[in-house]
Amino acid sequence: MAGAVVLDFHATLSNWGRWGEDDQLGALNLITPEITAAAAATVRSGRTVSCSRPLNTQAAPDNPSPVAHHMIGTATEGWGADYVAVAPHGFATSHLDALCHVIHEGRLFNGYPAETVTAHGATRLGIHHLHDGIVTRGVLLDIPLVRGVPALEPGEPVFPEDLEAAEARGGVRVRPGDALFVRTGRWRWRDEHGAWDLGTRAAGLDASCLPWLRERDVATLGSDGVSDVLPSRVDGVVMPIHTVAIVAMGVHLLDNLDLDALADACADEARWEFLLTVAPLVLRRGTASPVNPIAVF
Amino acid sequence: MAGAVVLDFHATLSNWGRWGEDDQLGALNLITPEITAAAAATVRSGRTVSCSRPLNTQAAPDNPSPVAHHMIGTATEGWGADYVAVAPHGFATSHLDALCHVIHEGRLFNGYPAETVTAHGATRLGIHHLHDGIVTRGVLLDIPLVRGVPALEPGEPVFPEDLEAAEARGGVRVRPGDALFVRTGRWRWRDEHGAWDLGTRAAGLDASCLPWLRERDVATLGSDGVSDVLPSRVDGVVMPIHTVAIVAMGVHLLDNLDLDALADACADEARWEFLLTVAPLVLRRGTASPVNPIAVF
Amino acid sequence: MAGAVVLDFHATLSNWGRWGEDDQLGALNLITPEITAAAAATVRSGRTVSCSRPLNTQAAPDNPSPVAHHMIGTATEGWGADYVAVAPHGFATSHLDALCHVIHEGRLFNGYPAETVTAHGATRLGIHHLHDGIVTRGVLLDIPLVRGVPALEPGEPVFPEDLEAAEARGGVRVRPGDALFVRTGRWRWRDEHGAWDLGTRAAGLDASCLPWLRERDVATLGSDGVSDVLPSRVDGVVMPIHTVAIVAMGVHLLDNLDLDALADACADEARWEFLLTVAPLVLRRGTASPVNPIAVF
Amino acid sequence: MAGAVVLDFHATLSNWGRWGEDDQLGALNLITPEITAAAAATVRSGRTVSCSRPLNTQAAPDNPSPVAHHMIGTATEGWGADYVAVAPHGFATSHLDALCHVIHEGRLFNGYPAETVTAHGATRLGIHHLHDGIVTRGVLLDIPLVRGVPALEPGEPVFPEDLEAAEARGGVRVRPGDALFVRTGRWRWRDEHGAWDLGTRAAGLDASCLPWLRERDVATLGSDGVSDVLPSRVDGVVMPIHTVAIVAMGVHLLDNLDLDALADACADEARWEFLLTVAPLVLRRGTASPVNPIAVF
Repeated sequence: MAGAVVLDFHATLSNWGRWGEDDQLGALNLITPEITAAAAATVRSGRTVSCSRPLNTQAAPDNPSPVAHHMIGTATEGWGADYVAVAPHGFATSHLDALCHVIHEGRLFNGYPAETVTAHGATRLGIHHLHDGIVTRGVLLDIPLVRGVPALEPGEPVFPEDLEAAEARGGVRVRPGDALFVRTGRWRWRDEHGAWDLGTRAAGLDASCLPWLRERDVATLGSDGVSDVLPSRVDGVVMPIHTVAIVAMGVHLLDNLDLDALADACADEARWEFLLTVAPLVLRRGTASPVNPIAVF
Repeated sequence: MAGAVVLDFHATLSNWGRWGEDDQLGALNLITPEITAAAAATVRSGRTVSCSRPLNTQAAPDNPSPVAHHMIGTATEGWGADYVAVAPHGFATSHLDALCHVIHEGRLFNGYPAETVTAHGATRLGIHHLHDGIVTRGVLLDIPLVRGVPALEPGEPVFPEDLEAAEARGGVRVRPGDALFVRTGRWRWRDEHGAWDLGTRAAGLDASCLPWLRERDVATLGSDGVSDVLPSRVDGVVMPIHTVAIVAMGVHLLDNLDLDALADACADEARWEFLLTVAPLVLRRGTASPVNPIAVF
Repeated sequence: MAGAVVLDFHATLSNWGRWGEDDQLGALNLITPEITAAAAATVRSGRTVSCSRPLNTQAAPDNPSPVAHHMIGTATEGWGADYVAVAPHGFATSHLDALCHVIHEGRLFNGYPAETVTAHGATRLGIHHLHDGIVTRGVLLDIPLVRGVPALEPGEPVFPEDLEAAEARGGVRVRPGDALFVRTGRWRWRDEHGAWDLGTRAAGLDASCLPWLRERDVATLGSDGVSDVLPSRVDGVVMPIHTVAIVAMGVHLLDNLDLDALADACADEARWEFLLTVAPLVLRRGTASPVNPIAVF
Repeated sequence: MAGAVVLDFHATLSNWGRWGEDDQLGALNLITPEITAAAAATVRSGRTVSCSRPLNTQAAPDNPSPVAHHMIGTATEGWGADYVAVAPHGFATSHLDALCHVIHEGRLFNGYPAETVTAHGATRLGIHHLHDGIVTRGVLLDIPLVRGVPALEPGEPVFPEDLEAAEARGGVRVRPGDALFVRTGRWRWRDEHGAWDLGTRAAGLDASCLPWLRERDVATLGSDGVSDVLPSRVDGVVMPIHTVAIVAMGVHLLDNLDLDALADACADEARWEFLLTVAPLVLRRGTASPVNPIAVF
């Protein structure tokens, strides 16, 4: 896809102003209380499944800034206590990006100026605005399943027709307010081949999926990678999904999820929809939170 | 209450072995898939409410080890990115205690030896065992509401009859598998009087509530304080709720929640029950996680 | 002193360009190898004295961001190991300011633009340029000693005539290339009265000392406070010593030293000069380093 | 060398009790004020040289827990300020080991029990006891120089005869109270071949050097590796230099120094002795400090 076409998406797919000029939530506004209630009503078995990797304290090619975890109380002191330090945007950490994470041509989503992202935190679009969490219908589109492979190759793109094939396979259709999860099989690939620098090669969505995402009006998008296919296949745009979805559309992204257990549960329950809850830490002016999204069937 | 009586609770209220000798979940076993599904079925309006305080980066008498929040990318670098470091057991942080947090006479819950709590993490009862989250019915017992005060005084105890009065007031009865939240009004007190060292004086449950909690078989217990009244009113036992609930009964505690918005929502919805989701970070061998519990009405 | 006079100092006392337009060291250029060798030749008794406070892990009014110190190996693991995290510019930490610490009207020392101080570190005037350390003659001017008091009052100014009285009392004259330490007795005051917010009231140098410092050509300036008297007594200039000494004169400052043991040693040795060594950590692009300056008599 | 012989060194080379049963300084007691003064008197040219690597914020095979360096003030905020977090015992960090770092058969140096190394820090032999610094004569023995190679191979041992050959080459003899630095050329090897896990292969001292070190009564020992040759060539003893030098002899070790600039300076000055100053941060109960040792010629 040509770079100019992707740059045009900033105009053609824009949600700026759609929810008011002071809006801090972007496409999460699509999750009305009615949608939340309807999602809860889909629960059948009560089975719950984590979509998070364990926090990773070991340096690796996809984890150059490992989580620090230190005990500050042990048997010797008579109690257990600890400390954890996370830079959540790393490629090994399941996290929710705030809309202040990405800047495009000096602007954040809704037109806020880049200068609002200061060394004292982001004064607009911080993660704390999501304090009441994301509770909506989740849909898993399992691309390796529809392709009949254990995992996509790093660098392999996912197109709108793949998303629709996965919808058909799962008997589900993505609709406004949904949390859409796209599985590429990244962790199975890593288990077999070892860690690699995800920033150089990652399976994920081709930029041609952007109009589809906007048309379906997803509230949030998650993946076991970073949603973007890398390299991006778009001249001059490193991460078109991150840039357009976050800045133009106001869609929060969930990166580096672990969707393997979820895929197994979906297959087992024969349902590719579920109640999803995402509960970011209330970090004022923060650009992200590590999260453990929970699916309830 | 005499210290000897509380010490006897370790025998009389014990859940050791109840869920197997290798059990890592304690009273969370009471949350069956059926209970989770039934809790989801209670959702009506779809309103969601956070039960977490913002992470607090300012030192205060109740926050001697403030959260560190640093930006590692800003407008200058062209993206927003940050770093957060938390010692979650502090009095200012909403967190979920793992069962490895408390040691009593050389033992953890289920009889595991204290020595399993090492400087490399807890090899038993770590917070990561809760990766699939807590999804169950939540019940709020709002003690200031039934007492007709804005907040309990620091050091003011809550007795079983208060819990039952709040049940009656709310038209709800605590039952096996519930997440029980007891509100004392701590943050309203703090707003008015300023921060103080909660470790010296806190409103909370008197030790006489312990048999009641065991009889009702709560799955988890949370409070806007630390559940314990402090001082404890029990000779020789500093925190009887922490010690007996965690070590003997295997009940995970949620400390320093913010239950003010939840209380307002309960009053507004005229319902003191809700779907509760708690999604701890998957920190292997960890003793706690900062959490943002979300109530869904 | 009028604000306009202090602002004029940026022109009249400037060292910009004095050591070349690419200079990264400022007044430390005054410490020639000959001066270092001469300082070593003053050593007589071989007594060594620390000028550092212990790193402070306890929150206090002058320590809102305490040092984090965690053990990562203990007896249980079979070895001792730890982790330490410091934000060195705090009022409780003995540290050496890099010249990139202070910005005045969009400029750093030598005219470098403020924009070089990025969220990825300072690309000019970083602390790592001082990797070979500061080794020169140190001189202690003990102001409480000449005033006959145990400690100056917080907010009490020190004038050029005080500096000269202390020189006369010590039989020493400050000369080019010296490290000048000015003692106010801050820690003795704190021991007696408790910690306070040093940012609101601190004994230190009046802005009228600036021409004196420039005339004597000190290489670096240290104090048991922050060198500046606070409030500054200068309309519109919060910290004139920090601003003019660092930005105009290129003089590195050493803040929050502990000069009590040094003062005792000077009195005992009857010498107010010594060999001083300061060895900052080699933190690329850093704005400061915690340090433990060592005086050798 | 047989494991039993090395274990015997704990008896035959022991300094336990030599400086009193409450001693916290070990072989640093050998540095008398007279020795410090004599070392200062050796200064000729006044040239100063750092012996520290820059703190390394990049993960690498020899740096699995990189230093965290975050800016907390930038041009946007109007000042430069930062934060640094270090776990100093890593293979990439120049640091000074405290004597509480190593435990042998349940004991620290001088017979203190291992249990004194708690999760709240080491109550004996903490790094803070060295607050007044190490100021003594330093001697560099440059092994690649005497072998005529740019660097030793990882895993290549250094024997007492190598030390004596380097003494002869440098015209210097190691004597009581000296700080002995042994260069292996590690960083030149790393520059050429890339980083590797130093814990598996490192050039360094063979265990047969231990009696020599004890006979010469060095006050402290440093290297560009970890002093130990790895693998150790001793059955059942992983790091005999660390274990015997620290626990039996009370010799503080300086690990991962950068001795390349020092070697160049020694060659240039035609002197392999110098005034050495090491100024650890005053970290109460700490097991180490990152340091920047400074040599003065």
